[in-house]
Amino acid sequence: MSTARPVDGLEQRLRRLGADRYHHRHPFNLRMHEGLLSPDELRTWILNRFHYQRHIPVKDALILSKLGTRELRQSWIRRIHDHDGVPGEDGRPAQDGGIERWLRLGEAAGLQRGLLMSGEGVLPAVRLAVDGYVNFCRNATVLEAVASSLTELFAPDLMTTRIAAWERHYPWVEPEGLRYFQMRVGQGRRDAEEALALVERWTRGRRADENLALEAVAFKCDVLWSLLDAVERAGEKAAEHARGPSDAV
Amino acid sequence: MSTARPVDGLEQRLRRLGADRYHHRHPFNLRMHEGLLSPDELRTWILNRFHYQRHIPVKDALILSKLGTRELRQSWIRRIHDHDGVPGEDGRPAQDGGIERWLRLGEAAGLQRGLLMSGEGVLPAVRLAVDGYVNFCRNATVLEAVASSLTELFAPDLMTTRIAAWERHYPWVEPEGLRYFQMRVGQGRRDAEEALALVERWTRGRRADENLALEAVAFKCDVLWSLLDAVERAGEKAAEHARGPSDAV
Repeated sequence: MSTARPVDGLEQRLRRLGADRYHHRHPFNLRMHEGLLSPDELRTWILNRFHYQRHIPVKDALILSKLGTRELRQSWIRRIHDHDGVPGEDGRPAQDGGIERWLRLGEAAGLQRGLLMSGEGVLPAVRLAVDGYVNFCRNATVLEAVASSLTELFAPDLMTTRIAAWERHYPWVEPEGLRYFQMRVGQGRRDAEEALALVERWTRGRRADENLALEAVAFKCDVLWSLLDAVERAGEKAAEHARGPSDAV
Repeated sequence: MSTARPVDGLEQRLRRLGADRYHHRHPFNLRMHEGLLSPDELRTWILNRFHYQRHIPVKDALILSKLGTRELRQSWIRRIHDHDGVPGEDGRPAQDGGIERWLRLGEAAGLQRGLLMSGEGVLPAVRLAVDGYVNFCRNATVLEAVASSLTELFAPDLMTTRIAAWERHYPWVEPEGLRYFQMRVGQGRRDAEEALALVERWTRGRRADENLALEAVAFKCDVLWSLLDAVERAGEKAAEHARGPSDAV
């Protein structure tokens, strides 16, 4: 009787990586969901995360340009519409996208959309993290670029936790503002399924290719984690400043 | 009374460039429209031009990734659907795209779609021309990448000439095959208007920027011209081969 442990499949390995490195474990997210953020901290996060949100269609257009068949592109292009929205046409009403919903989240939390659109106040480390992600999608192979989207496997659970936490702890944020998170539960599940099927088709159980996919997801986890590191540090600096000059010179 | 010649605007300069360098003047296109191509020459053109056609959504996705607002992307993304088509959804019927119509053009001329999809028989110089165009859209500024699409200013007239010429001279091509050209008359006009408005907005009469746009269009004319050079040369080679060994060693 063999006692050898069966080799884990790609999805198991991805889920283990996510459990370890996805930003649901970041201290800033933990504090957010425990209700411990001040309104200013929450707004700093919304403003900086918007810089990430507005670049999602850019990275998806770069991935689109790497997909070699119209069938693959016909499916992936939906992600761009999901974030940019679709103008009304031929009697069909306009559809808001994720960027519009994020602007409304900002307004619901007291941030003017003009400020978010201006990019003012975006932290340098956040710009670098987002640039890094976009450039990864620009320069990596199609396998790695698509795999980097697989953090969506873990996003719906985070969104569900977040919606409940915000309703409970931050009632001053108008409920309409949570629409972005609500929409992403379903969209994220569908996007994750699509990307996982592609990555499984392209790797076909070859360990070396699976490792490339896992490294891409690890990189993406680092992007998300770095963004929160920067926002967290900005909050600490602001708190230090508010306390006034310390003993240290 | 001043006798100084008024300085030409961007559109006038573009139209002069097109009159001079757009591939409607290429000897192969002239022979096509005069009805002088053999069925094999026509099929060689269809097969090689398909290699260009199938890369249009790729270059448009690259341009999409350079557009900085959702409004600009919401408009440009239509070009990708125009070529890739849209699968049926929510009770709406599927829409064929330009790639599908080009495959039907091939079938109408006796080329199996499997052959076109395989890429077999695409001439090296055609691959290089198409690579060059895609890489231009990847690496150039958004102004230059969008401007390179402005050959669409001249395409509708060429399509109109082509439809009449094919109906008259190549009746063995089934009429359904001409649908691609018919669709492009309207699509090309709309696309040219959109791109010209963007380029005018971005250059605002600054001569140096207008020159960059004109150089991009000149480059694109070279791409289209090179493609026909390669197809023409392949036909000459085939004819030489058919005539048998010549005196020259």
